[in-house]
Amino acid sequence: MSEPRLSLSGERFTAVYRLTATAADVEARARAICLEQTVEFPAALIPNEAIRAQIVGTLAEILPCSGSGSGDEDAHGFEVSIRYPVEAAGRELTQLLNVLFGNVALQPGVRLLRIELPPALLRHYRGPRFGIAGLRQRLGVADRPLLCTALKPMGLSPSALAELAYRLARGGIDLIKDDHGLSDQTFCRFDERVSRCAEAVARANQETGRASLYLPNVTAPADEIAARAARACGSGAGGLLLCPGLTGLDGLRRLAADDQLGLPILSHPALLGGLSLGPRQGIAHGLLFGTLVRLAGADATIFPSFGGRFAFTASECQEIAAAARMPLDGLPPIWPVPAGGMRLEQVPELVRFYGHDSMLLIGGDLHAEGDLAARCQAFLSLVEQTPKQTPND
Amino acid sequence: MSEPRLSLSGERFTAVYRLTATAADVEARARAICLEQTVEFPAALIPNEAIRAQIVGTLAEILPCSGSGSGDEDAHGFEVSIRYPVEAAGRELTQLLNVLFGNVALQPGVRLLRIELPPALLRHYRGPRFGIAGLRQRLGVADRPLLCTALKPMGLSPSALAELAYRLARGGIDLIKDDHGLSDQTFCRFDERVSRCAEAVARANQETGRASLYLPNVTAPADEIAARAARACGSGAGGLLLCPGLTGLDGLRRLAADDQLGLPILSHPALLGGLSLGPRQGIAHGLLFGTLVRLAGADATIFPSFGGRFAFTASECQEIAAAARMPLDGLPPIWPVPAGGMRLEQVPELVRFYGHDSMLLIGGDLHAEGDLAARCQAFLSLVEQTPKQTPND
Repeated sequence: MSEPRLSLSGERFTAVYRLTATAADVEARARAICLEQTVEFPAALIPNEAIRAQIVGTLAEILPCSGSGSGDEDAHGFEVSIRYPVEAAGRELTQLLNVLFGNVALQPGVRLLRIELPPALLRHYRGPRFGIAGLRQRLGVADRPLLCTALKPMGLSPSALAELAYRLARGGIDLIKDDHGLSDQTFCRFDERVSRCAEAVARANQETGRASLYLPNVTAPADEIAARAARACGSGAGGLLLCPGLTGLDGLRRLAADDQLGLPILSHPALLGGLSLGPRQGIAHGLLFGTLVRLAGADATIFPSFGGRFAFTASECQEIAAAARMPLDGLPPIWPVPAGGMRLEQVPELVRFYGHDSMLLIGGDLHAEGDLAARCQAFLSLVEQTPKQTPND
Repeated sequence: MSEPRLSLSGERFTAVYRLTATAADVEARARAICLEQTVEFPAALIPNEAIRAQIVGTLAEILPCSGSGSGDEDAHGFEVSIRYPVEAAGRELTQLLNVLFGNVALQPGVRLLRIELPPALLRHYRGPRFGIAGLRQRLGVADRPLLCTALKPMGLSPSALAELAYRLARGGIDLIKDDHGLSDQTFCRFDERVSRCAEAVARANQETGRASLYLPNVTAPADEIAARAARACGSGAGGLLLCPGLTGLDGLRRLAADDQLGLPILSHPALLGGLSLGPRQGIAHGLLFGTLVRLAGADATIFPSFGGRFAFTASECQEIAAAARMPLDGLPPIWPVPAGGMRLEQVPELVRFYGHDSMLLIGGDLHAEGDLAARCQAFLSLVEQTPKQTPND
C-alpha cells in the first residue's frame, strides 16, 4: 500500500515512572512501556520506520531511585523517563492520560511519578479560572489561609442544610460546600437544596458584609453535570464542587472550560484517590491531586491530610501542596485543601505546614461540643493568629 | 429548627469489603466505614435519630477471610458486609460508586469485593443492549467463541488502517476494533478513519457474506463522545469501543443508554485497571471489570488475561468471566474478552478456560511471521476445532 508520509513535529512530552525492577531487566521493561503506551505492537512487527522513529516512546533516562525528595518513604527501584510525541496525546485530556498511564495502570511495579508537558501540549488546557489570586479577589481575603467547611450530614433536608449554611456564613467561613455525598436524592433534591443554601449564604453576607461562597456538589450523571452547574449558577451558587474520580477527570476539564459558568471549582478526591495508593503502582500523590487536577481546571484540590482519618503521610501531603502551587507554564497556582477529619486544635500546625496560600477544610469538628458560632470564630481566630511565614514547601 | 420527617423505604444494598485489620479493631473499622460512606460525620454528633437509623450504613456481618474462592491468592483479614439505603445512591451511577467506595478508596486496607443490588436500585440501569445473545444474533454466529482484533499500530493513516480492516474482515475476524490509542490525532483523524474503515469492512462483508463489525474508539473529551458516536453510527460502524477509566464509568452508561445509537459496546480497561490492583486496596477484578462495567451497559469487557503481557492471575480472570456472565436480575450476560498479548497457540487453552461464550482478542500476533489471511484462518480454525464444553467457571 502507498502510505502517506508521517511527519510529526518532533516535540515530545515526558513521563517519569518508578519501575520496581532489577538492574538486569529494567531497560527491557522500560522499552516495553515505550511500545505499550503508543503502538501497543511488537517492535519487530512495526510496519514502517517512520512509526518507529516518530510514534514509539523514547527512553530518555534510567536512574536508580534515591528515595529522597520523592515524598515517598518507600521509594525503591528505578526512575525511568520516557518521551512521547505531543501529537499522540493531541488536544485531549482523555488521550493524554491514556498515553501517560492507560495500559500500564494495569501493571504492578509501575508508578507514574511526574510529567513534563511542553507549551505545544499545555496550550490545549485553559486550566484554573481563578486559582489562588482569583479566589482571594472574589472573597476579598488578601492575607490569610481560607476557611472551608462542608454541609452535612446526609439526611438533613434542604431547609435544615440552608439554616446550617446561614450559621456557617455568619460565623465567617469563606467557602461552604456541599458534602460530596449530597447529590439529588429524593430526601434532598439538588434544586431545592441549592436555591435555599445559596439564598441563606447571600442573606448572611448581607448581614456580615463578607463574601462567603456556597459551593454545591455537581457530581452527577455525565449528561446532567452541565445542566446542574448552570442551574446552580442561576441560583446564586458561588462555586462548584466536583469529584473527578466519579465523573472522569475530563468531566472536570469540561466544567472548568464552561464560560457560561465562570465559577471557582473545588475538586474532591472520592474514588480518584484509589489511584494514588502506592508505592509500587498508581499515580504519585503530587501528580494526581496537584498537577492533573490543576491541569483539568480545578481552583482548589481537596485531599486527606496527615493527622486525620486517612493515611497520607506528611511528605505525600507536602508533595500535593507543592504541585498545586509550583510554576506550571502560565497555569495559575491553586489551593491545596487539607481535609479528612481535621480538628480545630490542629489549625496552627496546619497553617505552619501548608503555609499562607492554603484552604483549611474542617467539617465535623465545627459541630463538636460548644456553640457552632463560637467554633467558627475560633477557627477564624486561629487562622488569623498563626504568624505568616514561608510555607513548608 | 423544625425538620421534616425523614422516611426512607428501608431497602438497602450491600457492599462486601475485605478489611486488613486485627480481630481487635475490625469492628471499629467497619463501623467507621458505615459513617464514612454516608454521613461522613462523627456518630455522636449526628443531629437526629432518623438519620442514624435510616441513612448510616449498617454492619451486617464480619467474617474471617477464608482465602478460598475469592480469586485472590493473598486473601487475608476480614470480609465485612455493610448495607446502605438505596436512596443514598438514588438513580445515579456516580453516586452509587461514591457510596460504595468514594472515600474509602483513599484508605489502604479496604478492598471492595462484591456488591448486591436490589431491584429497587437495579431498575435505574438499562444495562447491556446486546450482551451475549444479542451480539451472536447480530453477527450470525451461534455456536463458537468470537474472534476480535485491533487496528494498529498508531501512526498508520486512515487508508492504511482501512486496508488492514478489509483484510481482517476478509480473514473472518468477527469484531475489528480501533486500538484504544487511536483518538482524533492530526495524523489519523477520527472521521476519516471511521468512514474508511467502516466502508472497508462493509465491502469485505459483501464479498464474504459474513457480518463482521468495525468498532471505532469513541473515548474522547466529555462533550465530544456523543457526537463522535453519532457520526460513527452514521458512517456505518458496527459497534463502539470506550475506555470508561478515561471517561468515567458513567460516560459508558450514558453511551449505552443512547437509543439513537443502538450499537454494541466494548469496554477497554485503560486506567480503570489501576483500581483493581490489590490485594489490600481497590476494587476486586470481578466486580470492576465484570459487574460494574456490565451495570454501566458494556456488551463485552476487555481485560488482560493471564498468559500475556500483564500480571492478572488465572483466578482473577476467572472471577471476571464469572461476573460478566452470572445472573444479575435481568441484565443480560456479557462477553468476557481476554486480551493483552494473546497468541494463536494459546487459543485452545483460552477456549477451554473461558468457555464457549467468550470473545478472544488477538492483536499483534496476527501480524507475526506468515500471511495475515492465513493467520486469521488459523485463528478461526482453532476456535472452531476446540470442542465445546462447560466453561471453567
